[in-house]
Amino acid sequence: MSVEIVFVMVGTTHTGNLGAAARAMKTMGFTSLRLVDTCSHLSAEALARSSGANDVLKQAQSFGSLKEAIADCRVVIGTSARARQLAVPLKSSREIADEVAELAGSADASQQRVAMVFGQERSGLSNESLDLCTRLLRIPCNPDFSSLNLGSAVQVVAYELSQAVNSVPQGAPVPIPGKWKGSDGAAPAPLDPDELPATSEAMEHFFEHLDRVMVNTGFLNPDNPRLLRRKVRRYFESNRPSANELSMFRGLLSATENPRKPS
Amino acid sequence: MSVEIVFVMVGTTHTGNLGAAARAMKTMGFTSLRLVDTCSHLSAEALARSSGANDVLKQAQSFGSLKEAIADCRVVIGTSARARQLAVPLKSSREIADEVAELAGSADASQQRVAMVFGQERSGLSNESLDLCTRLLRIPCNPDFSSLNLGSAVQVVAYELSQAVNSVPQGAPVPIPGKWKGSDGAAPAPLDPDELPATSEAMEHFFEHLDRVMVNTGFLNPDNPRLLRRKVRRYFESNRPSANELSMFRGLLSATENPRKPS
Repeated sequence: MSVEIVFVMVGTTHTGNLGAAARAMKTMGFTSLRLVDTCSHLSAEALARSSGANDVLKQAQSFGSLKEAIADCRVVIGTSARARQLAVPLKSSREIADEVAELAGSADASQQRVAMVFGQERSGLSNESLDLCTRLLRIPCNPDFSSLNLGSAVQVVAYELSQAVNSVPQGAPVPIPGKWKGSDGAAPAPLDPDELPATSEAMEHFFEHLDRVMVNTGFLNPDNPRLLRRKVRRYFESNRPSANELSMFRGLLSATENPRKPS
Repeated sequence: MSVEIVFVMVGTTHTGNLGAAARAMKTMGFTSLRLVDTCSHLSAEALARSSGANDVLKQAQSFGSLKEAIADCRVVIGTSARARQLAVPLKSSREIADEVAELAGSADASQQRVAMVFGQERSGLSNESLDLCTRLLRIPCNPDFSSLNLGSAVQVVAYELSQAVNSVPQGAPVPIPGKWKGSDGAAPAPLDPDELPATSEAMEHFFEHLDRVMVNTGFLNPDNPRLLRRKVRRYFESNRPSANELSMFRGLLSATENPRKPS
């Protein structure tokens, strides 16, 4: 991405949470971790909980104060579990992600560095720390149970940022059925044309075949066929099978006409 | 929200992860938890990790199989860390959330029940479980490090759902097809429950019937059925028929078994 995002942990007391935070960051493509007054980030528990994100922990930089940790950042987002009085503007995780994405697309993105600041597990960020932030972020949650785990909060924020900034190659080469009519039209092209939706011509042959079976079995009364025929057609046209699937269905229809062994 | 969303954990091996999942759910306002073949959800560790979401754990329902756990659900979303062959349509967490939100805003919402299914920590969902899903969800992440913690995955999915569903003006006239299938929102929402996607239980009866016909006609070799069975299942699960359509297909299957006039 064109804007650098660093995660800053302040006063973390459970070493496992630092591992979980590193793991959460890395799953979303972030690696830059800064620490202020935290417990050990290289304990056995931290490394275990990072589950392979050891590199993030090992490269983490420690600072004597939040002020020093964010000295080179132009945008500082503090996370907060609750609304506070006298605080900087409070926005939702999605609003913040959209703002950061806007920044990432700007001409001066490369000169920006954004800090995402997470406070102590129970007490959050002190008022002094909040005063260093340019924005406050709140993850919208159940008003009766807003106790997000610290690792989970990092996960949600990192996820939102990665979604917005598109730092991660979205849905990279994922082989999917050709007939998948996704909402964004961005599905990668399938390699096998027989996995594409069948042609209309092939569909007509299929409907003729199906119709023959329906009439011959007495399921469809050809004297009064209208509604049933249309319902069957509507279903398969709304969910047009691939050429491969159509072959399969035609094979089944043929089998019902000429069973290979008695039923 | 007007659509009921249940979380289903399958084969979870770490009891702490069940606590983390319950906590993640509750922070986003979800409380309905179903368990299939998991470790203990009431251990001291699970309760501790739930951090106050004990009620979610205590109310959790256990089932003997995924099939039973989702029997009353019309939409079944499986989470998957990786792309699979022969799977149902794969969508991103945000696309799924948007689809569920669309459903939540529809007139049928109260009659729908959506299952979010999470597999075992390391291996995910088995192919057999995936075959029971109407959609697959993938959390977009770092292609080089996609190892999301189970609790984190539940957190991200719950967060996305709560963001999407809570932003829908409830009862707003959002016309969507009764058969929920993505982007082509043209048809008005039917109120007839038989026009909604069939339940998983009804689908299983249909598949049993279809299987009988396939075997009895010699189309399917029961000694080597795997791929064909899964392809048929994949097609109909990806395009789950309404209860009405299912009746129609079952009528046709019965007719092929007992034709009313000679073919």
